[in-house]
Amino acid sequence: MGGDAGPGMVVGGAALARERHPNLRFLLFGDEAKINPLLSRYRALRDVVEVRHTDDVVKSTDRPSQALRQGRQSSMRLAINAVADGEAGGVVSAGNTGALMAMSKIALKSMPGIDRPAICGFLPTLRGESVMLDLGANVDCDQENLVQFAIMGAAFARTILGLPRPTVGLLNVGEEEMKGNEAVKGAAAVLNKANLPLRFHGFVEGDDIAKGTTDVVVTDGFSGNVALKTMEGTAKLFTQFLRTAFGQSFLSKLGYMLAKPAMMALRDRVDPRHHNGGVFLGLNGVSVKSHGGMDDVGFATAIGLAVDMVADDLIGRITADMAEFSHHDVGPNDGVAVDGVTDDDDEARGRAIA
Amino acid sequence: MGGDAGPGMVVGGAALARERHPNLRFLLFGDEAKINPLLSRYRALRDVVEVRHTDDVVKSTDRPSQALRQGRQSSMRLAINAVADGEAGGVVSAGNTGALMAMSKIALKSMPGIDRPAICGFLPTLRGESVMLDLGANVDCDQENLVQFAIMGAAFARTILGLPRPTVGLLNVGEEEMKGNEAVKGAAAVLNKANLPLRFHGFVEGDDIAKGTTDVVVTDGFSGNVALKTMEGTAKLFTQFLRTAFGQSFLSKLGYMLAKPAMMALRDRVDPRHHNGGVFLGLNGVSVKSHGGMDDVGFATAIGLAVDMVADDLIGRITADMAEFSHHDVGPNDGVAVDGVTDDDDEARGRAIA
Repeated sequence: MGGDAGPGMVVGGAALARERHPNLRFLLFGDEAKINPLLSRYRALRDVVEVRHTDDVVKSTDRPSQALRQGRQSSMRLAINAVADGEAGGVVSAGNTGALMAMSKIALKSMPGIDRPAICGFLPTLRGESVMLDLGANVDCDQENLVQFAIMGAAFARTILGLPRPTVGLLNVGEEEMKGNEAVKGAAAVLNKANLPLRFHGFVEGDDIAKGTTDVVVTDGFSGNVALKTMEGTAKLFTQFLRTAFGQSFLSKLGYMLAKPAMMALRDRVDPRHHNGGVFLGLNGVSVKSHGGMDDVGFATAIGLAVDMVADDLIGRITADMAEFSHHDVGPNDGVAVDGVTDDDDEARGRAIA
Repeated sequence: MGGDAGPGMVVGGAALARERHPNLRFLLFGDEAKINPLLSRYRALRDVVEVRHTDDVVKSTDRPSQALRQGRQSSMRLAINAVADGEAGGVVSAGNTGALMAMSKIALKSMPGIDRPAICGFLPTLRGESVMLDLGANVDCDQENLVQFAIMGAAFARTILGLPRPTVGLLNVGEEEMKGNEAVKGAAAVLNKANLPLRFHGFVEGDDIAKGTTDVVVTDGFSGNVALKTMEGTAKLFTQFLRTAFGQSFLSKLGYMLAKPAMMALRDRVDPRHHNGGVFLGLNGVSVKSHGGMDDVGFATAIGLAVDMVADDLIGRITADMAEFSHHDVGPNDGVAVDGVTDDDDEARGRAIA
């Protein structure tokens, strides 16, 4: 029920995702009076979708605490519960980010060794794609949080981008060791010494994000959110300027016509719909936030991300890395076994969508 | 002596700035063996430049504390002293930002009511230009700092952009009142009630910077620096993608040829050289940092900014606003009169350049 475009985008996105992943099955939570008519447009979906009706919806203006208390029967909460109960492999929602985060934390619980889950996503870079976290879950972070983000982000890059030993940079206001606040300085000291399946690059700056200096960029949720949205805004500014430039004269319009195929390829490359999907890392279950302003194509990208996370057992990998890290670098391995939503039963791998 | 391009850029920039402001005079501090041969290339400059030789230079790797202790005879410090002594109307440097900030603070002193000076600069937006601060002087900021930044940024926009009552936004991770850390929430509460020569818009997000939602964007130095550099990096990414797109085929190359005049206008609009200049606001004197990677054109922009600040008595305006604010909103007006570098003697208005 979430997102600016509502159920239409969710159903359309599910149909697109199903084309790419023919074994996908969906649980759709929400107002069946709205969902069912939409489904009639996508025949291929009908047999693989189960609609679970609920009248209750988390509003975009609800506080997370409010959503937790009053939203127990909301489409969002029921979708998350389906993951917690093992009915679905992951949940994808375009709704209220704070509420999705809070409910996912309560229902799916944090992984052993992770104090605070983070929102992780992809960004387009000169070299291809980078992973950045936290994109907005935690406005204040200490050095332990940042170290845990580094471990989770590296596992994400290994799993989803297929990089055996990703490089990790800590976002800062300069590259020199003395720069930055206590949290980044402390985290850098730990990451420099730790024996982890990643290469710690040191500090990176804002312009390193788009350069793709490192495969993973780690930062607190305030700066990460600011950086993400600043990139979005700058990309839109550039697109607008470009449109103005091409429309300026007959010759520039003709020039645009000739360069159009190349320009379309460019548009494709920076299209935020192809980098959509904020993943809540650090939970015992797959929970993905789709940007509220996305269309079908963007929502399908977020679904695809959830599929990859389940298929590649990302949660198992992070759990193993955290256990290894705490064993070698902090204290004894606490030996907690985690059996999240990524069980071996392929049949159970539907997607719950709020 | 600072910046990647060194004295050549400074002398070239001074020559360009002099073309636009024919009454400008310069004090150049540094190695005369390097500066004098450069001056021979710019005949118009000779009569309006005085070179003050010093062997001592602040290195880009020096810590601010180190520069303060050991750099008393450095080109940077002597240039700042010229402002403090009333010999120059302002100082412009492309050198070590931390050192320039620290030395400017010591030599020029903070204004009454300002706890921490901030770095303020221009950014290109859809609507034209916006002002943002702090761009990196203070990695940790409390609510008082942010309120003071808002007052200073608004005075800057009134003075330099000529806006009678600029809009001010506080950078945050969401627009809702409950979002963000304690500092931004507290600052918003104060700015909502205060009677100031600005319109407080409330919270803005990263994408609002490029949109130009507000004339002034206020944030802590960590997020501000990240946002600024993220914009730079994204602009470079876009430019690179565009170059690749246009180079892809014979037709796209031909298209580029036709659209070239329009593209050049675009390039001009987002050219960072035309938005160059980080101003240290909150000091009793004009101190401007030019980006280290700039050329003559960019350095001339930074000089022009210093000229405008002096000509429009920015420091007098901020002092008056702060006095008015503390009178009405915080406590009794402390009545301190400030006579910085902006005295009435036009003859004394040279520029000191490190």
